[in-house]
Amino acid sequence: MVAKLSAVALLAASISAVSAQTYRRLGTCPTLGCILPPDQADFLPGQLFDLRIEVHAPVNGSEAAHDGVPDEAFTVTIAKDGEEAQDFATAFGIDEPEVETWDFSWYEDLFAEDRDEASLVNVASKAYRKLALYEPGTYTVTLSYYDGEETTAEWTVRPIANERKAKNVIFFIGDGMTTNMVCAFFRGVYENSLLTSIASQITAARLLGHASINGKYQSLLKMDDFPVIGHQMTHSIDTYITDSANSASALYTGHKSTVNAMGVYADSSEDPFDDPKVETIVEIFKRLTGGAWGAVSTAYIADATPIALSGHARLRNQYAALVDQALNGVANWTQHGGPDVFFGGGAEQFIPGSGSYEGRNIYDEFAEAGYSVSWNKTALEAASNEDKALGIFCVSNLPVWLDRNVFTENLESQENDPSGNGNAALDLPGLKEMTLKAIDVLSTRGGDNGFFLMSEAASVDKQMHAMDYDRALGDLLELDDTVRATIDKLGELGILDETLVIVSADHGHGFDVWGSADTEYLAAQDDDRAKRRAVGTYEKSGQSQYTSAGNLNYGTGHSFPANWEPRYAIAGGLGATPDHRENYKVHKSPRSPTTRLNGEYYANPSDAPDGFLVNGTLPTDEAVGVHSLTDVPVYAWGPCQETFSGTYSNIDVFYKIANCLGLAREEGDSGCAPTKH
Amino acid sequence: MVAKLSAVALLAASISAVSAQTYRRLGTCPTLGCILPPDQADFLPGQLFDLRIEVHAPVNGSEAAHDGVPDEAFTVTIAKDGEEAQDFATAFGIDEPEVETWDFSWYEDLFAEDRDEASLVNVASKAYRKLALYEPGTYTVTLSYYDGEETTAEWTVRPIANERKAKNVIFFIGDGMTTNMVCAFFRGVYENSLLTSIASQITAARLLGHASINGKYQSLLKMDDFPVIGHQMTHSIDTYITDSANSASALYTGHKSTVNAMGVYADSSEDPFDDPKVETIVEIFKRLTGGAWGAVSTAYIADATPIALSGHARLRNQYAALVDQALNGVANWTQHGGPDVFFGGGAEQFIPGSGSYEGRNIYDEFAEAGYSVSWNKTALEAASNEDKALGIFCVSNLPVWLDRNVFTENLESQENDPSGNGNAALDLPGLKEMTLKAIDVLSTRGGDNGFFLMSEAASVDKQMHAMDYDRALGDLLELDDTVRATIDKLGELGILDETLVIVSADHGHGFDVWGSADTEYLAAQDDDRAKRRAVGTYEKSGQSQYTSAGNLNYGTGHSFPANWEPRYAIAGGLGATPDHRENYKVHKSPRSPTTRLNGEYYANPSDAPDGFLVNGTLPTDEAVGVHSLTDVPVYAWGPCQETFSGTYSNIDVFYKIANCLGLAREEGDSGCAPTKH
Repeated sequence: MVAKLSAVALLAASISAVSAQTYRRLGTCPTLGCILPPDQADFLPGQLFDLRIEVHAPVNGSEAAHDGVPDEAFTVTIAKDGEEAQDFATAFGIDEPEVETWDFSWYEDLFAEDRDEASLVNVASKAYRKLALYEPGTYTVTLSYYDGEETTAEWTVRPIANERKAKNVIFFIGDGMTTNMVCAFFRGVYENSLLTSIASQITAARLLGHASINGKYQSLLKMDDFPVIGHQMTHSIDTYITDSANSASALYTGHKSTVNAMGVYADSSEDPFDDPKVETIVEIFKRLTGGAWGAVSTAYIADATPIALSGHARLRNQYAALVDQALNGVANWTQHGGPDVFFGGGAEQFIPGSGSYEGRNIYDEFAEAGYSVSWNKTALEAASNEDKALGIFCVSNLPVWLDRNVFTENLESQENDPSGNGNAALDLPGLKEMTLKAIDVLSTRGGDNGFFLMSEAASVDKQMHAMDYDRALGDLLELDDTVRATIDKLGELGILDETLVIVSADHGHGFDVWGSADTEYLAAQDDDRAKRRAVGTYEKSGQSQYTSAGNLNYGTGHSFPANWEPRYAIAGGLGATPDHRENYKVHKSPRSPTTRLNGEYYANPSDAPDGFLVNGTLPTDEAVGVHSLTDVPVYAWGPCQETFSGTYSNIDVFYKIANCLGLAREEGDSGCAPTKH
Repeated sequence: MVAKLSAVALLAASISAVSAQTYRRLGTCPTLGCILPPDQADFLPGQLFDLRIEVHAPVNGSEAAHDGVPDEAFTVTIAKDGEEAQDFATAFGIDEPEVETWDFSWYEDLFAEDRDEASLVNVASKAYRKLALYEPGTYTVTLSYYDGEETTAEWTVRPIANERKAKNVIFFIGDGMTTNMVCAFFRGVYENSLLTSIASQITAARLLGHASINGKYQSLLKMDDFPVIGHQMTHSIDTYITDSANSASALYTGHKSTVNAMGVYADSSEDPFDDPKVETIVEIFKRLTGGAWGAVSTAYIADATPIALSGHARLRNQYAALVDQALNGVANWTQHGGPDVFFGGGAEQFIPGSGSYEGRNIYDEFAEAGYSVSWNKTALEAASNEDKALGIFCVSNLPVWLDRNVFTENLESQENDPSGNGNAALDLPGLKEMTLKAIDVLSTRGGDNGFFLMSEAASVDKQMHAMDYDRALGDLLELDDTVRATIDKLGELGILDETLVIVSADHGHGFDVWGSADTEYLAAQDDDRAKRRAVGTYEKSGQSQYTSAGNLNYGTGHSFPANWEPRYAIAGGLGATPDHRENYKVHKSPRSPTTRLNGEYYANPSDAPDGFLVNGTLPTDEAVGVHSLTDVPVYAWGPCQETFSGTYSNIDVFYKIANCLGLAREEGDSGCAPTKH
């Protein structure tokens, strides 16, 4: 692998390798022999992938065996359907790889962690690179080791269409969450995490943005117009709660993975770039069609959801290297040609310095590769539609819709100019401006080959994590406004009928609304228990005052609240929280629900000082809210929309898109394939 | 109206009339003139309804006007589309009703309630009964009052098909919640409330009941097989959080209503039976097709969801009268003929005594009307499929699946025999047995005319309210097992192709799962904050141990957990709770999360004594969890399934079913209609 690691990154990787395995030696490997891709993996015909084999020898702990010496003489075979098994390397016509060895340690449970009793495992391994299976069917991979032990994996190459039904795909992901800066510092490797809008958030956003009379909405979300709804299951390959690196990766590759990983199956080695890769939707799309592709996000562009389109790494926090992978691809792997559109925040990976790849000026590297480079909305709108386009509009995440449109004073205190000059970035595009420009560039550059665009409302749940519900719902309404404008624009361009539009999420957050809160009454009570009486449930919940009692207008039609500070506010929140205070009022400055003391988080006394105290349910080293289990909705409109109906896994979204784009190939030479019988 | 009120019921009605109007004079009436059905009401062509007009004269408070004397000389007109307005009674060919007068009082806000400063309103009113509109289109009803003031309501009679596409409809509602007996006593009029399975509960139930390998489920819920998913918005006509009386009513009538009301729009009078009625799906179905209809519920049968099929009352707690309405209908209104199937709990409304209608023996009345009467599973299975069938299997709600199948010792301490003999009811059917028998009876009795069945998993969120998540999820899995058996049975009977099967909910609960909990570690810690460390999120959430570490089997295939007490349990819950304790273990006896002291609720110290304390977010007079805002899923299978795709209001479910059954009539004489032009 080409990517180099800084010393700091290596340290982070090392810490994570332990922390990510609490309770499990390696999630995908219940035996001492590991096959990655593991049992139950699915493939698109012709999709490139790597195989990683590991043989484990636990030195101590409950699984100690084989005197801690892993079998280096293991063998691997593959058999299609009921056919005879062949030696794996021979079948694919490649040289047998060298054996690699390493060790890693993990804690068997929290008691062991408290006692600092780590379990050590020695590993022997091989990696088989850049393979492909073209023939649909089932394949059995068998690992033989320790003189008679066997582990098998059944793989399925799905029978997918190679007939193309959609020219273009636009995939909206309501996603996102970066905790505020204070929290981020302490949150570990997924600190700048991710994602999701779910049904209850959509319901709440509708309530804030759209007026109803006697129970009938007078206008609706654009998402409510979508003809087809599906539900996708978001869990990881080895845990039932996901992060958005591996959930994005599942959506983009058709392969589930492990928390913090993207474009790879997570192995146990220390190097976050040597894990077995799987080819992504844009790599396949570019390789087969030559079409254009792009990523738009309100997050820093190295964040998991946009960067997983082209990224292959076990640790999402390898930001600099992942941006390099986006521009230059991965050596000896496929070439996606670099994105035709790359719009978002995250100047810290472009300004030469500690955040950029090898300290280089990444703006210059994009410019040298032929990109227009925009640092503000004015430049974005003026950029040529003929050229590849980079737009980086600030350091870190883009300020959220509520701050860009209502509490604009919050913009001025920032030092987030994308040039790195320390000024505030004030000429900012929103998700809508970025997405509409992306469609201009992609439709021009894609031409007859079509395009693939992923557009992410990242702060829907960056703000959900921060429990700043108004900011989250504002960004969800911005997503909906963007979807509406996108449908309109596709119509104007005459390409609506040939474009599949999907709106979904990468996972959920346990947010819901349970009533209204009389914020005046709450603030006027002296006692915490008395304050809770301000919450009205059922017949006392009343009607939305966000649409009735104000006159704010944003030139967008009926899309956003007319009033963000009604006396009767929504009373909502999460079941899983840190300690915090609550008064249900809009936070005029972005919310910081917790404060840190002796390594633990407590309620921030300056957050909602007139509210009441809620002690949390999360571990006390968690500063913010967390992701949840719930299935998330998939809205579909356009060619193949009917295939998105019903309930399915997140990986099925990839196969449905690939099917609609006709990306299956039952023969080819991009990767090595087993000899046909 | 025929129904008589006992003195106790009248007292309850009076209390509720005030409490239900906190913050609003009358939710559907922002002016001083009220038209019910109000502005924005929809109608099925030919559907029967009443009109209620009220003119309000507030005596005191912020709206005081007209010296507290309401205008009794108000006039009402109706105009179709742009046609000329006609006097309302004249247009419908009925006599002008007499003026009624009454008064009611309400609190303008919580401050007023604390000061006990009620606002008094004098009312003049008329009711126009048993009307129908046959011609699709829009109608404007205008109320003129106070010498120049006008209030208008625009009504829409929808253009619905009268061509029948489905012979039968089976409507499953995942619903339900009765708080435990202690709590119920204090919860006010919706104490035996209701309702809902939402997406996150379905996700959690799947995790408990179905095993996965490397992220791929090896079996799935039957609901996951349904080809079409929609989302319905559940809010009430005048509040954004609903109860299940008015949400059931919306699903069954196509008219939204107010918390605690069913089959009527809520007026301001004290009598809970004089409110303006709307015809329900089974009343229409019976009147037009002569088919059979039935209700099955794991609740007491007088609970909102089953009883709203035939009930017309502003207060759901009028249990005895509502059971009488189910058997005998409402005089001078439509005749539904009584249910062909009526299976559930709730013997207290059948045993002669304080709970039964006028103290009568209601078992006898059903028997005299030709019903077989079953008190246990054995009798149920032996009952004739030719006769109408009543099955009442216990006092109160049926014991939940977890107690009937795992913790069976909880059954033996009950005194719930449906005969009222004080013994424990032990020969109990579950939702599956009741539903399959219902299909036998209904398909036999309906014959060529078809049938309509509503089957309710009531305790899904009766137990969610009690925060007894395992019992709720057990009943959700029982619902899914019932759906699976129903599809199979319809196939065996050869009627699958002609039967529309819908699985939905009446509203949500803000439940979600955020990780796993190491219950051993949690119990071993002495400090509440340390206990929270037992919760594993993201990469520490692990995989479900409910399917892997046990060997429980119920003869149902892969449908239920193999182990209900894994060391690593799901960590989940609600954002809105009373004070409570939490240890994430299964509750071997049904959970009582709170205890009452001086009129307020505190955490029950004997619930989860080895857990940690969570102070709540709900008002301290709330003993249990509450309903939430979220849209809920609709799963559809069969004729017209495609019409259930997308996002819509709960009332649209009624119109979609009516459309599929071809229930619109553009002419008829069942109700008075305006003269045609």
